[in-house]
Amino acid sequence: MSPTNPPDGLHSFDSALQLCAVTDDRYSGQIPAQWANFVGPFGGILAANLLQAVCRNPARLGEPLALTVNFGGPVASAPFEIVTRATCTNRSTQHWSIELHQNGQTPLTGTAVFAARRDTWSTQEAVFPVIEGPDQLPPTVAEGLPAWVANYDLRVASGGMSFLNDPPAEQDSSETLLWVRDSSPRPLDYPALAALSDIFFPRIFVRRPAFVAVGTVSISTYFHTDSAQLDSQGEQFLLGKAWGKRFHNGFFDHSAELWGHNGSLLASTHQIVYYKE
Amino acid sequence: MSPTNPPDGLHSFDSALQLCAVTDDRYSGQIPAQWANFVGPFGGILAANLLQAVCRNPARLGEPLALTVNFGGPVASAPFEIVTRATCTNRSTQHWSIELHQNGQTPLTGTAVFAARRDTWSTQEAVFPVIEGPDQLPPTVAEGLPAWVANYDLRVASGGMSFLNDPPAEQDSSETLLWVRDSSPRPLDYPALAALSDIFFPRIFVRRPAFVAVGTVSISTYFHTDSAQLDSQGEQFLLGKAWGKRFHNGFFDHSAELWGHNGSLLASTHQIVYYKE
Repeated sequence: MSPTNPPDGLHSFDSALQLCAVTDDRYSGQIPAQWANFVGPFGGILAANLLQAVCRNPARLGEPLALTVNFGGPVASAPFEIVTRATCTNRSTQHWSIELHQNGQTPLTGTAVFAARRDTWSTQEAVFPVIEGPDQLPPTVAEGLPAWVANYDLRVASGGMSFLNDPPAEQDSSETLLWVRDSSPRPLDYPALAALSDIFFPRIFVRRPAFVAVGTVSISTYFHTDSAQLDSQGEQFLLGKAWGKRFHNGFFDHSAELWGHNGSLLASTHQIVYYKE
Repeated sequence: MSPTNPPDGLHSFDSALQLCAVTDDRYSGQIPAQWANFVGPFGGILAANLLQAVCRNPARLGEPLALTVNFGGPVASAPFEIVTRATCTNRSTQHWSIELHQNGQTPLTGTAVFAARRDTWSTQEAVFPVIEGPDQLPPTVAEGLPAWVANYDLRVASGGMSFLNDPPAEQDSSETLLWVRDSSPRPLDYPALAALSDIFFPRIFVRRPAFVAVGTVSISTYFHTDSAQLDSQGEQFLLGKAWGKRFHNGFFDHSAELWGHNGSLLASTHQIVYYKE
């Protein structure tokens, strides 16, 4: 399962996050081929790059709280520039606008909010799903799937892609439960969590055993954690749960949770996805 | 329950949406006092204005699909300007960046996606909640609550604010089920749906019977409908369901569904909210 890391010895995720500062607000980058999706790079690795550009900005305060990325056009396997701009800072949050420029176009826009957390009354209301452990589940075979999938060790407990069923059949529910971690171990951080928020295959592929053109239009992720909790997750499996609510005339929504191995909800994420019959 | 409409005869919602075109891309506006929240105007009416500014832009194509609004700083009860910019247009979606400027600052930023829908395989997976009809539930008394609440006829079936309980007591669940419509009847449209996406009182007030400072930081709404479905909703009650997943060191998330009276999921919406003990 482990893809070969590039000759510079970097982890494949870090090799896809090699932003070069042009100014404090502008970063140039390029996504390696091993992160390719059907068209352009995996959306999650692009989201990670947008977040990373803000993390790298010397004016940045606090830790990631919210990230929205809008996918307006295809990103080519070529250099791009990410432009970050702080729009508003108050006592608890800092707001950023982000754009990805390539070939004179702006295929991606986004916004990010960074936050300073304080100790307060806290509680987790969502319940950690009970599923088989990752050791009891087979890894997803990446062969035949887009290149980026091989970067992850994905173990589906329920709600796999319906054309992988034998025989392929429609399913009534789009809910998926799975475990996921990097194929080549790497400690979890915020950009990695932003990328993982997009690993859930399109819900329409769970419902229907047919390939159709699909693409994320907009994704919003909320980070419910802090650096210390991310550090305690380390390289271990995360539990993921995803489901859709409505598929209507070319667009469906999809929500997902990413849980730490110890039962902490690390992130919740939502997206609206284009599909074409 | 019906607030008095202003002397110009406009519905209170329309009077709060009176944008004046400065150029094709810039609109000036101001929110009337009857839409005031504890600090500044109700977030939902601001979100509606951001969406309306794009709807008004002559370059706009298609109907609203996704809207994200980030609340970076307080908006004063004073004139503001909304700047809209199309960043990318493809065959099915058009992407917009939006900013609200006031007093030389940018308290709000946002992005919107508009879409052209086509007839495709469609299905609704989420299930319409079963609750008492609105006629069997008392309207929420707006007295003592921020001014904007009086613009809505809100009928809570379960999960009300816990300090309204007798006696006030902590609750284990933040889930709320309610009916809502305009106090003064008005047919539903997209800006109204954007505003309604923010009517769910803060989940921490459902959990705990204590007033604390709260404020939406970022809200994302997905529209699952089209104009024809909105027209069929008319002035009737919508069913709303909201719940939170994690309250952690100053921020909690909150998701909600808005259902048409006939059982169509019209919108799903998600936000991350600041709270201070």
